[in-house]
Amino acid sequence: MSSSAAAFASQNRPRFLDELKSLLRIPSISTLPEHKGDCRRAAEFVAAELGRFGMENVRLIEGEGHPLVYADWLHGAAKPTVLIYGHYDVQPADPLDEWHTPPFEPTERNGNIYARGAVDDKGQVWAQVKALESLLAANRSLPLNVRVLFEGEEEVGGEGIAAYVASKPADLKADFALVSDTELFAPDLPTLCVGLRGMIYTELEVRGAKTDLHSGMYGGAAPNPFVALAQMLARLKDEDGHILIPGFYDDIIPPSPAELAAWRSLRFDEEHYRIAEVGSKSLVGEAGYSVLERTWARPTLDVHGMPGGFTGAGAKTVIPARALAKVSMRLVPGMTPAKAFAQYKSYVEKIAPAGVDVDVRLIHSGDPCLIPVDNTYIQAATRALHEVWGRDTVFIRSGGSIPIVGDFAKHLNLPSVMMGFGLPDDNLHAPNEKFNLKNFELGIQSLIRFLEEVGS
Amino acid sequence: MSSSAAAFASQNRPRFLDELKSLLRIPSISTLPEHKGDCRRAAEFVAAELGRFGMENVRLIEGEGHPLVYADWLHGAAKPTVLIYGHYDVQPADPLDEWHTPPFEPTERNGNIYARGAVDDKGQVWAQVKALESLLAANRSLPLNVRVLFEGEEEVGGEGIAAYVASKPADLKADFALVSDTELFAPDLPTLCVGLRGMIYTELEVRGAKTDLHSGMYGGAAPNPFVALAQMLARLKDEDGHILIPGFYDDIIPPSPAELAAWRSLRFDEEHYRIAEVGSKSLVGEAGYSVLERTWARPTLDVHGMPGGFTGAGAKTVIPARALAKVSMRLVPGMTPAKAFAQYKSYVEKIAPAGVDVDVRLIHSGDPCLIPVDNTYIQAATRALHEVWGRDTVFIRSGGSIPIVGDFAKHLNLPSVMMGFGLPDDNLHAPNEKFNLKNFELGIQSLIRFLEEVGS
Repeated sequence: MSSSAAAFASQNRPRFLDELKSLLRIPSISTLPEHKGDCRRAAEFVAAELGRFGMENVRLIEGEGHPLVYADWLHGAAKPTVLIYGHYDVQPADPLDEWHTPPFEPTERNGNIYARGAVDDKGQVWAQVKALESLLAANRSLPLNVRVLFEGEEEVGGEGIAAYVASKPADLKADFALVSDTELFAPDLPTLCVGLRGMIYTELEVRGAKTDLHSGMYGGAAPNPFVALAQMLARLKDEDGHILIPGFYDDIIPPSPAELAAWRSLRFDEEHYRIAEVGSKSLVGEAGYSVLERTWARPTLDVHGMPGGFTGAGAKTVIPARALAKVSMRLVPGMTPAKAFAQYKSYVEKIAPAGVDVDVRLIHSGDPCLIPVDNTYIQAATRALHEVWGRDTVFIRSGGSIPIVGDFAKHLNLPSVMMGFGLPDDNLHAPNEKFNLKNFELGIQSLIRFLEEVGS
Repeated sequence: MSSSAAAFASQNRPRFLDELKSLLRIPSISTLPEHKGDCRRAAEFVAAELGRFGMENVRLIEGEGHPLVYADWLHGAAKPTVLIYGHYDVQPADPLDEWHTPPFEPTERNGNIYARGAVDDKGQVWAQVKALESLLAANRSLPLNVRVLFEGEEEVGGEGIAAYVASKPADLKADFALVSDTELFAPDLPTLCVGLRGMIYTELEVRGAKTDLHSGMYGGAAPNPFVALAQMLARLKDEDGHILIPGFYDDIIPPSPAELAAWRSLRFDEEHYRIAEVGSKSLVGEAGYSVLERTWARPTLDVHGMPGGFTGAGAKTVIPARALAKVSMRLVPGMTPAKAFAQYKSYVEKIAPAGVDVDVRLIHSGDPCLIPVDNTYIQAATRALHEVWGRDTVFIRSGGSIPIVGDFAKHLNLPSVMMGFGLPDDNLHAPNEKFNLKNFELGIQSLIRFLEEVGS
């Protein structure tokens, strides 16, 4: 396994980490307008490094938001082409007082590096970049053709890259994508994510009276939009976690018996998960499905907020004219956002109680995706991971959505290899985000080996 | 009818209105801590005026919240004593963008004055104050003994005045109360309100996970507090407007056949009410009851707001750790707040879905009340109203709650005369609240004549 590229990576480990710290010091918080300049600095930092060690056609692709970073190396003749994806933007760091060390002063502690963006996704982007540098430095060439596309809007919906990918530009022509924005199922367990839930995120607006009314004067005769919403929401999902929209489950492609068997063999302690991760008095969801099935392979429906009416302290006796529910549904393979939304909309309109008007709006959506594990690139990845970690790869799914993976499939016809090196307790989107230093190192080695394997 | 007091009131009408505008400019929103100073300014404004024209023992009665305003004139020897009640606080003015003119810049338009508090209750308080001024100015004495007690917490539950009344202070000794915080059944139709619904105003808090969670990662296994709330609310009131709390209807004393017959003879056009007042596509509520019965003599349940989670524009995929519903119930004669709350709390705790903790809090409450129409003061009021308006009085109830009326009865043994001059379309608690200027004037005249009648 010890190629000269792997040796180069080992020798340069302290420098790679120092560089990552420099990148982590840039507070590239994409959702906050006051950090627009920082987002650009982060993009420029990454682009400059790609150019320094020999990537070509390095440039920022400008759009309405934060720029994309592009680079390529296309001298691999008949070799396949990989499109390497990651993102340089980060989530806001609040609540600041819960961080043990400041979010933008990367700090080593207990074998981890703590900083906002450490694992999501700057640490993983840097692992990709350093794998490329190691390969180029050791061999003066890459084992395959490489295109790099990093974005700076992943944490705010990724509209810029989605539009760019949908335009099918020539410089994204590739054979597969390599996405490093996921995690290991457990420490030391090489993991590939091969499935993502899709989603539809909607707003359900209910309007009753033409204006806010006094609940004493009108209560009992005027429709109450919150009561109507509650009645509708209660008919969308029952207390057993079953979604009641007609036809909603019809097209689901369940996991194969082999995949289910593999999940059952994963070490997963539901009680530890309930206490340490969720912290509720019990877990909920559909009977007959394990937690992994419920969060990876079953659709679900959540309400995120219900704006409208009186939300201050104390009492106001108002029947609000309108109320809203922010409702999303996670979709699984077989389902499409268009059909799910149509089913939802038609059902909601049917069950709307008397007296109210209902308006259903789609805010955004993403396709579910499932990657066949017998695909060449996944197979190459498992061989590479075995060499570096000494263990068989586990195939997991994620309950979340990585919309770009769906976009790569839909617009560019690219399968994605989701090879990431985070850990379940890395505090993504939360205080004290971290990245395990061993995983950073083995991540670089894994990526080197994987690209060598695909190119061989 | 034209006493010299009545003439004084007519002559001073423009000044009275200017003074009312000054009072309306003070944003005495009792529920918002940042308007605490404004509440005091409004109290001081009213107190100063009472002292200026000759009321005695004028003072602010301090408590934990906004002060009470007290004044008296007790030189009526053997005459009866009236306790005059109103409130100087107002509801919040939001949503501000629905006001045609700013809520705290009183504006005359179409024979009305528009402002927050115009009818509820500053305009009516000012009618009471100006009736007293007119009587004193014209006669150098009042036709009966008068005590004045205005509060500044009516819109937030009136705890201060309730505690004060419950302490049965000597300076509230009286024979009856005069409450001006109600409305005419229709324009030009003199009206006395003889029944009020009571209420309980509650907060229903639901807690799931220990912290906000990502709905992709955890959706399907972690409890969603909004979904739980919706399921519980749907089990509190069904789509026919029937409250599902066991025993909730058991103690109701229905209106007498005579009262029901009188209501049926009132000109009430449900379709006009639906279009002009409510503006919804249809009315809701219990089958088999008229709108007047539903709003005057049947309990109901409303949701006023559901704070928590994500309420901004766009999408955030959060499963919030907690969510709240502000839920109130209106109570009718026979019911008590204590029993209704106990029934509600016990039912809600029973129906709480798996995975969540539920906390039910009583924010405030008020007793329902019913006043016999054969009482002396009600009879004097009907004679006075006939003289001023030239028509027989109609006896109605109100769906709203004026908890102080129950407190006056319970602690001071005072019957209340609820003589108010609002109109059904005055937009209480809503944008573009108004008070009809003719009703302001005839209100003052009616109050003058009523006090003269009681004292004669």
